[in-house]
Order: sequence, then structure tokens, then C-alpha cells
Amino acid sequence: MDNQKLGKQTYLPAVPPVIIGYGSSAGRKECEGPLGKRFDHTCADDRFGEKSWEQAESAMQQLALDAALKRAELHTVDLDYLLAGDLLNQCIGSSFAALEDGVPFFGLYGACSTMGESLALAALLLSGGYGSYAAAVTSSHFCSAERQYRTPLEYGAQRTPTAQWTATAAGATVLAARGRKGPCVTAVTVGKVRDKGIKDANNMGSAMAAAAYDTLSAHFQDTGRSPDYYDLIVTGDLGRLGHRIVTDLFAADGVTLENYNDCGLMLYDLARQDVHCGGSGCGCSASVLNSLLIPGLISGQWRRILFCPTGALLSPTSSMQGQSIPGICHAVALEGACS
Amino acid sequence: MDNQKLGKQTYLPAVPPVIIGYGSSAGRKECEGPLGKRFDHTCADDRFGEKSWEQAESAMQQLALDAALKRAELHTVDLDYLLAGDLLNQCIGSSFAALEDGVPFFGLYGACSTMGESLALAALLLSGGYGSYAAAVTSSHFCSAERQYRTPLEYGAQRTPTAQWTATAAGATVLAARGRKGPCVTAVTVGKVRDKGIKDANNMGSAMAAAAYDTLSAHFQDTGRSPDYYDLIVTGDLGRLGHRIVTDLFAADGVTLENYNDCGLMLYDLARQDVHCGGSGCGCSASVLNSLLIPGLISGQWRRILFCPTGALLSPTSSMQGQSIPGICHAVALEGACS
Repeated sequence: MDNQKLGKQTYLPAVPPVIIGYGSSAGRKECEGPLGKRFDHTCADDRFGEKSWEQAESAMQQLALDAALKRAELHTVDLDYLLAGDLLNQCIGSSFAALEDGVPFFGLYGACSTMGESLALAALLLSGGYGSYAAAVTSSHFCSAERQYRTPLEYGAQRTPTAQWTATAAGATVLAARGRKGPCVTAVTVGKVRDKGIKDANNMGSAMAAAAYDTLSAHFQDTGRSPDYYDLIVTGDLGRLGHRIVTDLFAADGVTLENYNDCGLMLYDLARQDVHCGGSGCGCSASVLNSLLIPGLISGQWRRILFCPTGALLSPTSSMQGQSIPGICHAVALEGACS
Repeated sequence: MDNQKLGKQTYLPAVPPVIIGYGSSAGRKECEGPLGKRFDHTCADDRFGEKSWEQAESAMQQLALDAALKRAELHTVDLDYLLAGDLLNQCIGSSFAALEDGVPFFGLYGACSTMGESLALAALLLSGGYGSYAAAVTSSHFCSAERQYRTPLEYGAQRTPTAQWTATAAGATVLAARGRKGPCVTAVTVGKVRDKGIKDANNMGSAMAAAAYDTLSAHFQDTGRSPDYYDLIVTGDLGRLGHRIVTDLFAADGVTLENYNDCGLMLYDLARQDVHCGGSGCGCSASVLNSLLIPGLISGQWRRILFCPTGALLSPTSSMQGQSIPGICHAVALEGACS
């Protein structure tokens, strides 16, 4: 059987690429949350030994990739290519990390959907017959994101109830084209950019919910699957409000999402950690995938997961110019055991 | 024959994807240059009917894509996916264009190498068995880039002799997986991030030259080809100084590059147009490819071109933090007639 397209946006590899390594790094607040003990590398001061928060992001990406390569029993020289991106202007977190890694590099920008985009492209390229091993990596950092998108931390600006907390975290996944055992990528639904007119940069969950609903709907329509085909459907970082909107949009279609969660609700304890609507940032879904979801597929806790990172494609400039916030969501279907 | 990897960084499609459409848009200064009459869409005031320079970039991408689709005899609904990126923070030029296009979207960040990265990924995905038609698009705008990277235009800051001129231009290429005639993508060499310690943000050509030399060397080594295999080797936007450095680096290896040019030297008349070391920006190589190079492959002016866009992966933040400028270059081999 050949690789194929199903419906309008979904692609199925004939030989699903196998996840052979996963790694994560996270900051102090993330370590105080429910997944705290699962991260491979943590740091008490969120600097990871670097002089700036931006350089800390590069360090976090490298630590996550090192952990993933160790599990995969590979070295950077074994990787055919690296796909990575982050939230920083000009994606410097990823570029400076890739400089140190010395691996052929595809830079991506998908905002907080980057873990989905990088995983999707890695799976499609490997199953397309190009190379043996690839890595998908992304990161975010609360301090670098706050000063870039909102206000410098020193201002101590008050956050609105719909705000989310940008995760200080990174995740890395290493895939093999074939010949190894482990969880695998069985389908990819490529998202479209969607915009429902939300202009409040402190309400990203609502802005991205339309994209998540759109990609999930496309996935179900393209594949003929219903939501209960998956043990877990998990969006990237919609938080409490965005998760509710997606649930409501499907309910209006007569579809009940029983098994639906969001990485922004899983990374922190919302009742205790003062993150308002939940977590966000590229590192949110990346660190949840690479600390909880992949191990859960390996252990058999879940057999099938639909992993759907979501990104808000705004910039401070587009917001200042009065434009609304476009969103995107890529869906990646993961299954527990392939070989 | 299957798709294959050659050497360490090069990939060869078994069935080379065919370029079935190309389109370009450009601003006033670009229209006054040697390629002026070749662009599909031009604009006297560099606003392209929009309220801001940033929104003008989105409009330019759409105009270039429209022209490419028209030549391909396709509509946006026929595209399986779009790969695009630009220089703006958070790549808003591409995201807002993709919102209007309504096509499944992979956002990229490769700085001025983006035309190479998008073309490479489109070719690898299509020849990997995923979809029938894809578009690769990118843009840059002098005014949005100057105020973001350097100083607001109103300051009238003096430019150094090594400075280059960010092109106000966009380019779009439409590829078909098979079944059509035209120029084709026969090989892709994926670049690594390289950094030789250049810290002067007004000397991007020197910063990127190391990456161009690295990727070109890898391409020749992986394929066993010598430079004279190609009728034209063309880097992205190294300008006069970067072009000279690459020529010198190969000369030091005993290799003479006879047939080597740079898009930054082709877009403007350097003697007349006050662009110092030449053109730069994602739109530089994108508009040269989609107005001159692809038509030249179709007409038989060139049989084989090695198209090597180069990107400087800095940000104003990384420069202010004292870091040097990493660069990347992807090489895409184009041949005149495939079917």
C-alpha cells in the first residue's frame, strides 16, 4: 500500500513512523504542577545556566533533545534532520539550538501548534522515503514571551481572567522511519488558518478554539472516524475557556466529546497554581506530549491519542494595527504499538 | 526506483515534482531594476492597496500566488497545502495571507532562505506520496523590515557600505506531484545552521556566506557533481561581499565557480540604484526565481540551476544580547524539462 491522502486534509503513511525517543525540560512552576516528576530536566531559576531567558530557551531545547536521543539510543549525527520552531521573534530559540546541534534544519513557525506541525512534517518526510531518523522540537519561556508579547515582567501587570500562562518548557520527539518498535504516527490532518474575529490578546483560547474545531471536524470527516475512536483527544493549549468552546461547538453538531482534554489543563493545577485559564506556549503541548502522552502510549494507558496542538498566529504589531487573531491547529494521530 | 538519500544531506525524488506555476509581485524600486518588466504585479506606492506595510506583505503574497495559480490553471481549492513564511515577527505576512487563501498551511521560518525551504519541503512532501499540488510562497518588504530590524524609516539613518536593501517583493511557485510537464525539482540539500562569529547586523552577506559555502560543498560532495554540472548556481541574497566570500572560499579549495551568481546582484542595478551591497530579504530570491529563473528554465536559457537561498537567523534581541549571526542555506536543484 502507498502513502495516501484521505478526504481533503488528512494523510496516512503506509508505514507509520515510530516514536523512538521523547524528552522534556521545564521550569520551576511547571515542576510544581501535576506532571512535575515526569520531566527529564528541570531548573529552579528558569535560566538553565544561561545569561538570558532567550538563551535559556535554546538550552531547554537541547536538553529535551538530548533526553529524547538518549532514549532513542542515537546521537545528533544520526539525525537526518531537525524540525523546530518557537515563539520568539525570528525563532532564535530554535536557530541557536540548531547551531549547537549541527543537524540539517528546517525552521518552522506555527506558534503554539509547532509541536504538531514539526511532528506532522517529520512523520510525512520519513514515511515519504526521506531519511531514517528525524527530531521534532519546540519550546517556550514565560519570561521571554511575556516581555515580547505583553509587558516586561518588572511592570507586574495584572492579568485578565481569560489569560493563560506561557509554559517554561520544551519537548523533543525522535522518530524512526521503520525497523523499530514503539508508538507511531498513523495519520496527520493539516490545519487551515481560521479567524473568528477575536481581538483580545489576553483571550487566546477563544481565538484558537475555531481552528481546533475546524481541524478536528476535518479529521473526523476525512477519516470517517468518530471521536470515540480515540481514547484521548487532546488540544494544545486552549485552556479552560477554549476547551469549553470546542466542547460546545461539537455539542451544537450533536457530537459529545467524552474523552477530550487540553494540555493547558494538564500541565498545571488550575485550582492551586494561579494560571487563570491554564497553560499556553509551544512548550505546553510539547512537554505534555513528551512527558505524559508518549509514555502513556508505551505503558498502554492509552491505545490511540489524537494530539492537536493549537497556535495563535498574532504578533504585537498585528494587534496594535487592529487585526484579529488567526489560529491554526494540526492533528496528529498516535497509536500505542507499531513495528 | 524509490526516493533516496544521497550522502549526508541530499535527497533525490524518484519522480521529480514539476513546477507548473510561478508568480511574483514587487515594489517600485524593484520595478526600476533589471527585472522590472518581468513581475506579474507591481505597485507604485509599496502599499498594494493596504493600510500598513505589514498588510501589504500579505497582499503581495496573495498576488504572487494568484499569478502562479493562473499559470498552473488551478485554483486555491486545488492546492493540498501551502508552505510559506516571511521575516516579520511571528510571520504575520504569511499567516494573514494563508487565512485569506483558505488552504491547509505549514508556516515556516527560514529568514531569507524561505523560498528554498518552502520549495524543498513542497517537493519532498509531494514526491513522498502526499497530495497532488502544493504552493511555496514568501515575501519581504523594505519598510516593514527596516522598522522591525533596524530603525524606523522616518529617522533616515545612514546605511553602511556592507548593508543590503531588503526587497519589497514576493514570489510563489506551484508544484505538481506528477502528470504535468515543465521544469522540475531533482534534488534537495538541507542546510545546517552555521555561524562564523559575524556580529554586524549591517553585514548579513558575510554572516550568511559560511552557510552557503557549507551547503554547496555538501551538495557537491553528496552528489559527486562538480559546479559545472549546473549552467547556473545562484545563492539567495549574499550581495556583492557575500558572493565574493563564497567565491574565495571555493577558490581556497581549488574550485573555480564560473557560473555563479547571486539573486541580490540580479534584482537591482547596483551601479545605479543605491542598494550598496545588493538586495536581500525573503522576497529577493523568491522574486528572482519566479520572474527570471523558472521562465529561463522553460525557455531553455538554462538547463540546470542550483538555487540556494540563504538566511540570516538573527533577531534584534539576539544582536542586542551580543550574539553573533547564524546563517542557513538550502540548495534546490532545478532542471528544465521533466514530465
